[in-house]
Amino acid sequence: MKKLINDPKNVVDEAVAGFEAAHGDIVTVSHDPIYIARKDAPVAGKVAIVSGGGSGHEPLHGGFVGYGMLDAAVPGPVFTSPTPDPILAATKAVDSGAGVLHIVKNYTGDVLNFETAADLAAADGVEVRTVVIDDDVAVKDSLYTAGRRGVAGTVLVEKIAGAAAERGDDLDAVAAVAEKVNGQVRTMGVALTPCVVPHAGEPSFTLADDEIEIGIGIHGEPGRERIKLAPADEIVDRLLKPVLEDLPFASGDKVLLLVNGMGGTPQVELYVVFRHAAEVLAGKGIEVTRSLVGNYVTSLEMQGVSISVLKLDDELTELWDAPVQTAALRWGR
Amino acid sequence: MKKLINDPKNVVDEAVAGFEAAHGDIVTVSHDPIYIARKDAPVAGKVAIVSGGGSGHEPLHGGFVGYGMLDAAVPGPVFTSPTPDPILAATKAVDSGAGVLHIVKNYTGDVLNFETAADLAAADGVEVRTVVIDDDVAVKDSLYTAGRRGVAGTVLVEKIAGAAAERGDDLDAVAAVAEKVNGQVRTMGVALTPCVVPHAGEPSFTLADDEIEIGIGIHGEPGRERIKLAPADEIVDRLLKPVLEDLPFASGDKVLLLVNGMGGTPQVELYVVFRHAAEVLAGKGIEVTRSLVGNYVTSLEMQGVSISVLKLDDELTELWDAPVQTAALRWGR
Repeated sequence: MKKLINDPKNVVDEAVAGFEAAHGDIVTVSHDPIYIARKDAPVAGKVAIVSGGGSGHEPLHGGFVGYGMLDAAVPGPVFTSPTPDPILAATKAVDSGAGVLHIVKNYTGDVLNFETAADLAAADGVEVRTVVIDDDVAVKDSLYTAGRRGVAGTVLVEKIAGAAAERGDDLDAVAAVAEKVNGQVRTMGVALTPCVVPHAGEPSFTLADDEIEIGIGIHGEPGRERIKLAPADEIVDRLLKPVLEDLPFASGDKVLLLVNGMGGTPQVELYVVFRHAAEVLAGKGIEVTRSLVGNYVTSLEMQGVSISVLKLDDELTELWDAPVQTAALRWGR
Repeated sequence: MKKLINDPKNVVDEAVAGFEAAHGDIVTVSHDPIYIARKDAPVAGKVAIVSGGGSGHEPLHGGFVGYGMLDAAVPGPVFTSPTPDPILAATKAVDSGAGVLHIVKNYTGDVLNFETAADLAAADGVEVRTVVIDDDVAVKDSLYTAGRRGVAGTVLVEKIAGAAAERGDDLDAVAAVAEKVNGQVRTMGVALTPCVVPHAGEPSFTLADDEIEIGIGIHGEPGRERIKLAPADEIVDRLLKPVLEDLPFASGDKVLLLVNGMGGTPQVELYVVFRHAAEVLAGKGIEVTRSLVGNYVTSLEMQGVSISVLKLDDELTELWDAPVQTAALRWGR
């Protein structure tokens, strides 16, 4: 295992300290319990949005804290849910009285711990709604999950719900727009290489030199099938087919196309993938009106990519375009 | 070699086509000869800035084309300079009559080909100035280079010179500010793993499982020394010492600290590095007033990082903060 770390058990604490040092203009950090909050939180009258989960998926979620997106992010240990305590502390810290939306990726530990925190927050008088993200079409029920997994679509939910909260929507409305995005986004990924959890020191799974895993989870959970390495266009076809059939997307749809790197894939490959994905969509009469390419929901140094397609309408497009100012996603400010 | 590509010889063309499909709101692409230009170029009365070089360092340079940064980027084959033809075509396409600044990383092929293109452009009546970037303190004279190499500091030169051009500085002034940034930035990098050039199919160098290369070049050129893998803080100390001694930086300096991922390094590690680098600078009385963390000048899927320190003054800070709207660097618009 070759990593730029010190003691493996301090990786998250040290990374969060580095994040604080780099982005002190946007965030403040609580170290015990650990969470990252928007610098000006709580924002008077605004619904707050809190997300979180195991570390190792950066920039998710800390990189999305700031104006127009998350009010707080709660990082757990690598690939491990945060406990209810920091989630509760973050929730109470950012609530302005307008209530808090929890955006939770569908993994058993995350769902349970956010639920406990929400109950405790409610007992303290904080109104909480929860939206569970499950955009991964690859598998139903898997390691860590009952139902589908929450993967790269999460960044789209966080951006769009964040914009709704910023424009002044109330808690029910912000929760509704988050549900709507989750309902209209579908994702599938592929891994070329595994990743190594620092404190484990060994790859979480193995792949032969000529093998890739289609439908991989963001923690290296098994996908749909292992196949021989194939040309990028063939791999894109295999990822897009189930994504498009699932909603289903149809000719005339306007969509946001997200090509998300898993962490270790060079950008040049992400654009090779984007090119063919856009081509396939165009061939089906589906218009890509917004796009996002880069490392947004990663799995440490895993080489691979996921493709997400989100069906847009005027409202979602307007919320997507609204200003955002976070460490990892920023425009209009 | 596991890569998300089709035919290795089409990687750059396909990636550029993907870039065009994803960022058509910001850029236009010429496919033959190949270059990426700002959508609204030539911008009347504005000095234009053109950069370029071998591909494989994305987002450099195409990801920096847009308002407030580059007017055009000319991608060569992977790790190989573009020929003079596309550089000349890009130069002429974006010149508004106010002249063109070439920002060239100091590699023999790039310097030569940009020089030829500049001569040809001058013969066609386009005024061209050239600034050669050589921020890497690791080695003097190396594979591909006479003198020091141009590495991650390039992104800082392109951003700040771009802002100077955008505010209306004339060609001499834009060239002067680019020279100033190059004169005040120092960089050194480390590789944990090599990278594989697609058409070569083999790693460009090898490192043992417990070995890292200090002072690596962005094409995998040899650095200063190979050492055993060490804790991140020790590696940061080894990178920062020559960087800080070289300018030299001194107590009371205000600086921009750039921690640049080489492509395959997870973000969590970049922040572990940033944390200690900021700590070391603080210990020397050097104040980090601006920061940038992420993959900006990469070497395909190489795992590693470089640290750049740029001495700021009020003018450079103001130009850094000015609005920018490119695929890879964006704020204020």
